[in-house]
Amino acid sequence: MTITGESLIGGVAVRGTGDAFTAWEPAAGKPMEPSFHTADATQIDTACQLAEAAFDTFRATSDADRAKFLDTVADQIVALGDELIVRAMAETALPRGRLEGERGRTVNQLKLFAELLREGSWRDARLDTALPERTPPRPDLRYRLIGIGPVAVFGASNFPLAFSVAGGDTASAFAAGCPVVLKAHPAHPGTSELVGRAVVRAVELSGLPAGVFSLLTGIGNALGQALVAHPAIQAVGFTGSRFGGLALMAVAAARPQPIPVYAEMSSINPLFVLPDALAARGPAIARDFAASLTLGVGQFCTNPGLVLGIAGPAFEQFAKDAAAALGGVPAGSMLTPGIASAYQQGVKALAGQSSVQTLVTNDHGEGLGGAALFMTSADSFLAEKALHGEVFGPSSLLVACRDVEQMAAVTAHMEGQLTATLQLEESDVDAALVLLPVLEKRVGRILANGFPTGVEVSTAMVHGGPFPATSDGRSTSVGTAAIGRFLRPVSYQNLPQRLLPEALRDGNPLAIWRRRDGQLSKD
Amino acid sequence: MTITGESLIGGVAVRGTGDAFTAWEPAAGKPMEPSFHTADATQIDTACQLAEAAFDTFRATSDADRAKFLDTVADQIVALGDELIVRAMAETALPRGRLEGERGRTVNQLKLFAELLREGSWRDARLDTALPERTPPRPDLRYRLIGIGPVAVFGASNFPLAFSVAGGDTASAFAAGCPVVLKAHPAHPGTSELVGRAVVRAVELSGLPAGVFSLLTGIGNALGQALVAHPAIQAVGFTGSRFGGLALMAVAAARPQPIPVYAEMSSINPLFVLPDALAARGPAIARDFAASLTLGVGQFCTNPGLVLGIAGPAFEQFAKDAAAALGGVPAGSMLTPGIASAYQQGVKALAGQSSVQTLVTNDHGEGLGGAALFMTSADSFLAEKALHGEVFGPSSLLVACRDVEQMAAVTAHMEGQLTATLQLEESDVDAALVLLPVLEKRVGRILANGFPTGVEVSTAMVHGGPFPATSDGRSTSVGTAAIGRFLRPVSYQNLPQRLLPEALRDGNPLAIWRRRDGQLSKD
Repeated sequence: MTITGESLIGGVAVRGTGDAFTAWEPAAGKPMEPSFHTADATQIDTACQLAEAAFDTFRATSDADRAKFLDTVADQIVALGDELIVRAMAETALPRGRLEGERGRTVNQLKLFAELLREGSWRDARLDTALPERTPPRPDLRYRLIGIGPVAVFGASNFPLAFSVAGGDTASAFAAGCPVVLKAHPAHPGTSELVGRAVVRAVELSGLPAGVFSLLTGIGNALGQALVAHPAIQAVGFTGSRFGGLALMAVAAARPQPIPVYAEMSSINPLFVLPDALAARGPAIARDFAASLTLGVGQFCTNPGLVLGIAGPAFEQFAKDAAAALGGVPAGSMLTPGIASAYQQGVKALAGQSSVQTLVTNDHGEGLGGAALFMTSADSFLAEKALHGEVFGPSSLLVACRDVEQMAAVTAHMEGQLTATLQLEESDVDAALVLLPVLEKRVGRILANGFPTGVEVSTAMVHGGPFPATSDGRSTSVGTAAIGRFLRPVSYQNLPQRLLPEALRDGNPLAIWRRRDGQLSKD
Repeated sequence: MTITGESLIGGVAVRGTGDAFTAWEPAAGKPMEPSFHTADATQIDTACQLAEAAFDTFRATSDADRAKFLDTVADQIVALGDELIVRAMAETALPRGRLEGERGRTVNQLKLFAELLREGSWRDARLDTALPERTPPRPDLRYRLIGIGPVAVFGASNFPLAFSVAGGDTASAFAAGCPVVLKAHPAHPGTSELVGRAVVRAVELSGLPAGVFSLLTGIGNALGQALVAHPAIQAVGFTGSRFGGLALMAVAAARPQPIPVYAEMSSINPLFVLPDALAARGPAIARDFAASLTLGVGQFCTNPGLVLGIAGPAFEQFAKDAAAALGGVPAGSMLTPGIASAYQQGVKALAGQSSVQTLVTNDHGEGLGGAALFMTSADSFLAEKALHGEVFGPSSLLVACRDVEQMAAVTAHMEGQLTATLQLEESDVDAALVLLPVLEKRVGRILANGFPTGVEVSTAMVHGGPFPATSDGRSTSVGTAAIGRFLRPVSYQNLPQRLLPEALRDGNPLAIWRRRDGQLSKD
């Protein structure tokens, strides 16, 4: 498939009149063909208006048809073949294995949402029986969730497939019956265009209105801001920097009609090495921690950027073991020169803190991220906010605490996080019970004896967390619960059967789980 | 019970050091004893800190215990006896029957949330089975909803019991395990104190930490703004004016950690009189409309402030019938002098519009609201935004449309609404099908052949709607779904049984509905 550098607006490839740019090949340190052209204000407006015009038709499709559409999107991505992987490798410097795995994840994610639609209980159908004899009479009331409207999705730089054009935000918005206007990430514009063309083809094959999906390509902040400000857009999905997320939140809040923004922004993902686990498995934990930290050059939202242990010889040895393991990891190409330079500055800033001891700072080189490991005391961490921020890349800070109570105090002073991990033995469970209530208030996912960098796409996953991990701690951007972000409830009172949606009609024609007078049933 | 004019902070009655004020008896046009004293910054801070300190204990209570607590709150409100009704009548000018009914509604609402807790599926418990043989292995993942944290609730002026101190916001927050810091509405401070003391007594009887509930009394905007700005507060429930709701949204968005605001703000609740219904039942609809409009001096969020019909003799006759019915309704005392004066100004402004024909403006008198009815064309309505605003009170605007398509166009140009009502015959259903998709995007509840002023407290109710009906169209403030506003998800990965909450443990010890690998079951 030829990559043309165009936006895809309502099924038509159109050349932007804004700034031109090219993709960058980080491993080679050079630009790539072809030129891309930033979408202009008129094109943004067209995409949004087409999305709005497509909304009623799209949301009126049956769940079965929308499920088939999601499967078709998956098929069309697979049909892109190796061209997609090769282009993504060049644009991101991520290895083949990782990208093939990520493609599998993207495809499975679309299929998981298709399954969710076929199962049907996502509608949260509710029926309250009329009680005409009651004083006052109770009406017949029925309730379901519907799509919120067209969604603006921002592709993320660090997952060019699974959190990008046809990633979790797009899949969950489509499942909800919401058209998507996608802002492609300029770090992988060719990959985005390829996947965008696959989605457009799936829209065509499914006989849906072309406005169900548009892909806008471009550089600069104006494009994204205009998209979020457009009156047709009813919600925003974003994965990226805190700075970027906060900017979009501000635009959304300043609209005449404010809209929800689901921004997944920053997290340092504390890892708690509890005393008996440290004594029993210190060296193994240190080694696995180093592997988790440097996986994908540390470019994961769930990268373990903070390690808490109890001060003493065992934790000192852990630090030495981790440093030794990290020392052997070569610096890798980062996703973009901007990410690499921000990472190197972040590492330098931490190294310059007087309260922080530098254990490892591997050489970086231009565009590269070398592992870095630092150590400080809990007292210093509690005193200095500068130590709390995310350094996106393979850098982590060890924090020596006096005891488990100080671990809890550090946790309570931390910002909201996506994850927290407990390394524990059975005999550490009492200590973990001290931490647990604090953790539940601070994070979206709590793990035991694993590492946070794997994020399963499933029913029970939460990839979310209190601000600033995300803009909205009531949500997840991974897993089937992500569909909830793009839904709102509507209640129908005493409506004739013909006016009711199928999901709420007498006799349960869709044979889905419904809540009748508060009780779940399939009757 | 003696009303002392104090705030109730963590179970202790304390006298505010801020501005003093008294309740006002609207029907008598005079102030009432005793003096109330506005809570100061230190007292607000104490209430919020106590709420935060109480959160872990409160959310760790079993659902059964929290259900019992809600029942106890209900019992303590009933135990206030007639003193509550008498005080509320004096402070609001609402009649005895209405207030006794509202007390019943308040009590039933608390009991409905108690039932919800006993049923258990509100936790949305999810379990994904580990797949250790898969590559990569899938971990054991479990998911549940937990309380978001302390909630600031603002009592509403127009429902001194059901949307006030122990109303739907408080009941749903308590059910979710969230402590409540309540800002009492100064229009019924004595009623608020009585109910507040009942809640405090229920907290004591239930052996809960006193910080689970505080009541702050006061006048002026500073109190509410300080409350919403307090770092301990994690969500806001509000029912009131658009101006007030927007102000709180701005405070919440400007916090270092932004928090969700659930503000129910304004709605004109369009009523669509479809052609065959008009022909068949015009006079009856006109009479019932007049009754719904003037119920409680029109002081309902769901008051029908807009009536759409097809221009012609039948709709002219409807206007005459409605005007005749309204002409016989005496002006009633409004809740506060401020509400009465805003209403009178709103009516005057509408009457002054050149495109608007005045059909009825009953005399008001000081503090009173007389019914008002106006008529305009759909073309004028579409052209003039000034006609779209809410006039809180018994005023309504008839809009003559050319045809059903123009009705749909008017709807599409309307702001978000709580409700829309269709008066229709079987033969109008095709016309209704044209309106329905537009309505679904604009309103939270769609009714047929009724009037919107009754809001059932049940499982399938939505009392919400797109902005500006509410600040957050993803929610309802009435019915069991209201609990969702104060919940957020947490995922647990590979946690030992002892660290898991009961709702997620093996063997389903609470015997609740759970989602296992995507499928609902009680196993």
